Amino acid sequence: MENRYTAAVITVSDKGFAGLRKDTSGPAIAELLREDGYEVISASIVPDDMEKIMTGLVLCADRLCPCLIVTTGGTGFSRRDVTPEATRAIIEREVPGIPEAMRAESMRITPYGCLSREAAGIRGDTLIINCPGSEKAARECLAAVLPALKHGIQILRGWSGECSSNNGHEHKERHCNG
Amino acid sequence: MENRYTAAVITVSDKGFAGLRKDTSGPAIAELLREDGYEVISASIVPDDMEKIMTGLVLCADRLCPCLIVTTGGTGFSRRDVTPEATRAIIEREVPGIPEAMRAESMRITPYGCLSREAAGIRGDTLIINCPGSEKAARECLAAVLPALKHGIQILRGWSGECSSNNGHEHKERHCNG
Amino acid sequence: MENRYTAAVITVSDKGFAGLRKDTSGPAIAELLREDGYEVISASIVPDDMEKIMTGLVLCADRLCPCLIVTTGGTGFSRRDVTPEATRAIIEREVPGIPEAMRAESMRITPYGCLSREAAGIRGDTLIINCPGSEKAARECLAAVLPALKHGIQILRGWSGECSSNNGHEHKERHCNG
Repeated sequence: MENRYTAAVITVSDKGFAGLRKDTSGPAIAELLREDGYEVISASIVPDDMEKIMTGLVLCADRLCPCLIVTTGGTGFSRRDVTPEATRAIIEREVPGIPEAMRAESMRITPYGCLSREAAGIRGDTLIINCPGSEKAARECLAAVLPALKHGIQILRGWSGECSSNNGHEHKERHCNG
Repeated sequence: MENRYTAAVITVSDKGFAGLRKDTSGPAIAELLREDGYEVISASIVPDDMEKIMTGLVLCADRLCPCLIVTTGGTGFSRRDVTPEATRAIIEREVPGIPEAMRAESMRITPYGCLSREAAGIRGDTLIINCPGSEKAARECLAAVLPALKHGIQILRGWSGECSSNNGHEHKERHCNG
Repeated sequence: MENRYTAAVITVSDKGFAGLRKDTSGPAIAELLREDGYEVISASIVPDDMEKIMTGLVLCADRLCPCLIVTTGGTGFSRRDVTPEATRAIIEREVPGIPEAMRAESMRITPYGCLSREAAGIRGDTLIINCPGSEKAARECLAAVLPALKHGIQILRGWSGECSSNNGHEHKERHCNG
């Protein structure tokens, strides 16, 4: 039986949640994920509220158990931007290299890249990644790390069959097998 | 009424506090900030003591409410270097991209750049940034992020009038509006 | 009396600990350290267990007091990879620039570099650094930061005689003396 790369997208936005702004970033992320071979099993919107983001992440990770959750929004400097704080509060193991890679890519494009506050980490069998709220920045940030994510998921889920394939085998050995 | 970009500089140094060493980094940072359009409303020196740095930061942020606090000193490997720890203890939201950008710049100049332990974050309406203690390194690090800071402050303070200007509007939309 | 740069190597590996896999990364790291002038005073293997890694690090740092501890293994995405968590739990001051420099180097080599979760920090007079588990990646990561480490150790230990040498004096002043 083939392994399924399942993903969920959570948009964090007061205006999106209240129906005052059309969410284009969430659908754009879902599209990028599908193009990369993920099955998007859930898409939802939560307001910029610490407790509600935490609850949204925990329910998604623990009930749906997707391989990957990508959030968009709430990573900036506005008073209500708390997605990274909510994410750090519910992950078990941080993956600092993912936001580092995103910001390094953003800083190549604009000096404002250093203001992005994304976090990433692992909860159970699920990798959780924050992306910025704007569609363009979210696309750029996700594209910067997407080539690495399936490999991380394989290791996290113990899909050893895939790990023994030749494709990228050396890199897998080198960076993720413990 | 025009928005004022206010800033405070805090030098962290046992020797500076005791009057045994002339502080040149604090004045250099104040000069850089003024050249960039900031009104420097406070400059002070505290010793390399966890509690005293925390108190200095909290009083400065909560009473003076500057848009920006820049510290210099206490970010290295000496036993008494605890400025990043004191900063992390009093901020509400971390901004990891700012020290990442500083260190990436430092590492372009010297391999010792990876030893710098700066932190940055937000407390209330104030952005707090650590810089190294030496004047030259402090200048380099601050210069690496200064072009982004006013934009972060605009978002943090909700200065929407400025956000709707054309200057850098797209980047603002992309990286900080949630 | 000349200062001695002492180091300890800790391999984190369930299979290595059980004798099911030959540890090549630990010896490779020890060799790199010796070539750089370190006296390797200890080499040990612990399983991928949070408590056992913490105990191993604490006993090594507090009893042997090496200038440097380098771990290899347990930094990836496997369920039992918890070396960064164990390291963060026992350090007193984090040194984020060291893993940032390692990952930046890894990402130049492979997109999977962003999945590496290494941490680094200071406990007492000892600098502790995580490296990946594979020999090749461990070599690459350690090589990326090795040129800076002795300087950090000099500052940490207060070896002022060495700090007043001409070699790299300006950089020392700039990045580590507070």
